[in-house]
Amino acid sequence: MTATDSRLHDLQTPALVLDKARMMRNIHRLATCIRAKGAALRPHLKTVKSTEIASRLLADGLGPATVSTLAEAEVFAGIGVRDITYAVGITPQKLDRVAAIRSRGCDLSVILDSPEQAHAVAEASDRLGMTIPALIELDCDGHRSGVAPGDPALVEIGHLLHDSAAELRGVLTHAGESYEVYGREAHAVFAEQERQAAVASAEMLRNADLPCPVVSIGSTPTAHAIKNLDGITEVRAGVYAFFDLVQAGIGVCKLDDIALSVLTTVIGHQRDKGWIITDAGWMAMSRDHGTMGQKIDQGYGVVCDEVGNVIPDLIVIKANQEHGIIAPRPGSDAALPDLPLGTTLRILPNHACATAAQFSEYNVIPSEPGATLLKWPRFGGW
Amino acid sequence: MTATDSRLHDLQTPALVLDKARMMRNIHRLATCIRAKGAALRPHLKTVKSTEIASRLLADGLGPATVSTLAEAEVFAGIGVRDITYAVGITPQKLDRVAAIRSRGCDLSVILDSPEQAHAVAEASDRLGMTIPALIELDCDGHRSGVAPGDPALVEIGHLLHDSAAELRGVLTHAGESYEVYGREAHAVFAEQERQAAVASAEMLRNADLPCPVVSIGSTPTAHAIKNLDGITEVRAGVYAFFDLVQAGIGVCKLDDIALSVLTTVIGHQRDKGWIITDAGWMAMSRDHGTMGQKIDQGYGVVCDEVGNVIPDLIVIKANQEHGIIAPRPGSDAALPDLPLGTTLRILPNHACATAAQFSEYNVIPSEPGATLLKWPRFGGW
Repeated sequence: MTATDSRLHDLQTPALVLDKARMMRNIHRLATCIRAKGAALRPHLKTVKSTEIASRLLADGLGPATVSTLAEAEVFAGIGVRDITYAVGITPQKLDRVAAIRSRGCDLSVILDSPEQAHAVAEASDRLGMTIPALIELDCDGHRSGVAPGDPALVEIGHLLHDSAAELRGVLTHAGESYEVYGREAHAVFAEQERQAAVASAEMLRNADLPCPVVSIGSTPTAHAIKNLDGITEVRAGVYAFFDLVQAGIGVCKLDDIALSVLTTVIGHQRDKGWIITDAGWMAMSRDHGTMGQKIDQGYGVVCDEVGNVIPDLIVIKANQEHGIIAPRPGSDAALPDLPLGTTLRILPNHACATAAQFSEYNVIPSEPGATLLKWPRFGGW
Repeated sequence: MTATDSRLHDLQTPALVLDKARMMRNIHRLATCIRAKGAALRPHLKTVKSTEIASRLLADGLGPATVSTLAEAEVFAGIGVRDITYAVGITPQKLDRVAAIRSRGCDLSVILDSPEQAHAVAEASDRLGMTIPALIELDCDGHRSGVAPGDPALVEIGHLLHDSAAELRGVLTHAGESYEVYGREAHAVFAEQERQAAVASAEMLRNADLPCPVVSIGSTPTAHAIKNLDGITEVRAGVYAFFDLVQAGIGVCKLDDIALSVLTTVIGHQRDKGWIITDAGWMAMSRDHGTMGQKIDQGYGVVCDEVGNVIPDLIVIKANQEHGIIAPRPGSDAALPDLPLGTTLRILPNHACATAAQFSEYNVIPSEPGATLLKWPRFGGW
């Protein structure tokens, strides 16, 4: 028999479950750590997409914040968040919407890495009679977007912003490649790489008589590993509120820090094959298989009983649209447990951002023992 | 310069685009083919999740239909669909909801593959004073769920249903493994395997004096390849309304049959690397990389201009949450086209079911030349 939680019994499955005590522990751990080092924390709200959770993640419940879509900026500005960075490269087509959010009293800044974008932000600021602030994105690790540190384009872009109706707000970088290495020491190397890229670029701008008030770095692995924040004004991180198997697999958290899971029901068995079939396929878990290249491949998720205790070596080995197939991890000699038809289980996800996005509601297990389940809505879209 | 479509200019990206003319062509092709062979077509609505599209897919707009969630059954029953099969193994916890849908006048049937489930359906039928019909799921190809053809459990389950307050409606199978092979002849082999498993099982039930009015088979590849429907009463298929790169990769459709795409905007470049960066990452495309094991790996999607013309050898090679990275297909000697900041493109998806699920709305390009864009809502959840 697996342990059960009566508060979850009335849920139709699959359902998204959030363990509030774990989430609050994750939130406080990083906030305390960054505050102690003298920088601000600017949580990324792209993972949670929930006003209830944002109010718990943000300093004083109101900011500063990072978002990945203008839909997020609109929702969070709507609850009074007053300082938001939209951290995906801006396009000309989105600037009217940025201006509309700013006109509601939210200091929304954009990011960019090209003279073309700087021209567009300058033109929109001029046309709309509104100063739109922009940070210059830096490429500290070859991961994705950004100006290479030391590239003269940095100063060119800085001037285009500063010598126009727009505003040069600072520089920003993200060590996306830190997800590919294991352990605090390896993440600290990426953190220092983020710091050096950002600080050197800020210096380059200041040496050209340009302002650089904001020097922003961060990713969940580097934010937890960074030793030195000299010259840095703020740190960004997002998935840490929930954590997930990818983060556990690179040593940023433990399995029992993971606050998000998918409640599922056993719908059948293929006993000859050693399969248990559930109603949480990839539509519930997402297609993210981010642990595939890690030391331990967790398939489409780690299986727990209804209370959240990990069942050793039991994973979702395969996911169809509305079917998950559970079996012992390949190579394990664990026996398949007896989980009869109708048993409810919880599955820890590879990637919290992707799994949460498949649902419109969190079923929140409150921190207080015995308290009833809460429902927190979640939004999506752009 | 890439070609543009002025009707798409006002959309904020990423956005889901549906080419209605292609969809109607796909719908009519299969409907005509199955009707000519003398069976009914029971379209699977899990891909489209739209009442506007369901009314175009279903015979007379009202049925019969297949669904993968009870949320779909509730929505489609709500617009008057009167004959629905919920084609994911039933659990005891869902039977009250099944009964509620049936009590609204929709003939909703469930599927199962174990005596435990048959007991649960019999018990619920008795307790609720309502005959719940069930089909026995058969495992024709080792793909997932189902009773193996010839397994005596088939007759045991048949009796549990028939000799109780429930109803034995028939047998159903799905050759999920047909997605793994290329070409019509290979799919026809799986289609015949579906047919033989279903017809033999129906015979086994009838030889035990059990009824088997429905003999149901189908998958998109087998439905398009099947030559002989003797003994079959209905064929199921779903993704064919939209098609996608996975289906094109196994030869079920051509690229210009794919009716679904994601509109995206160029947000940057990494010219040293030959990368174009867009605002359609995996949150828009989904994490599905279903062409990875195929002859041509399409990455996270095939790039088209705004009108939908494929740009040769240009694919989304990498996807982050809100960033897509476009480059020539590895190994190709195609040059990177000049696609400036702000260029809008359309991306054909690997898996239409997964990509459509990331959006709450279809932007429909009407069949009539010059007609304005339509907005059709799309739902999700369970």
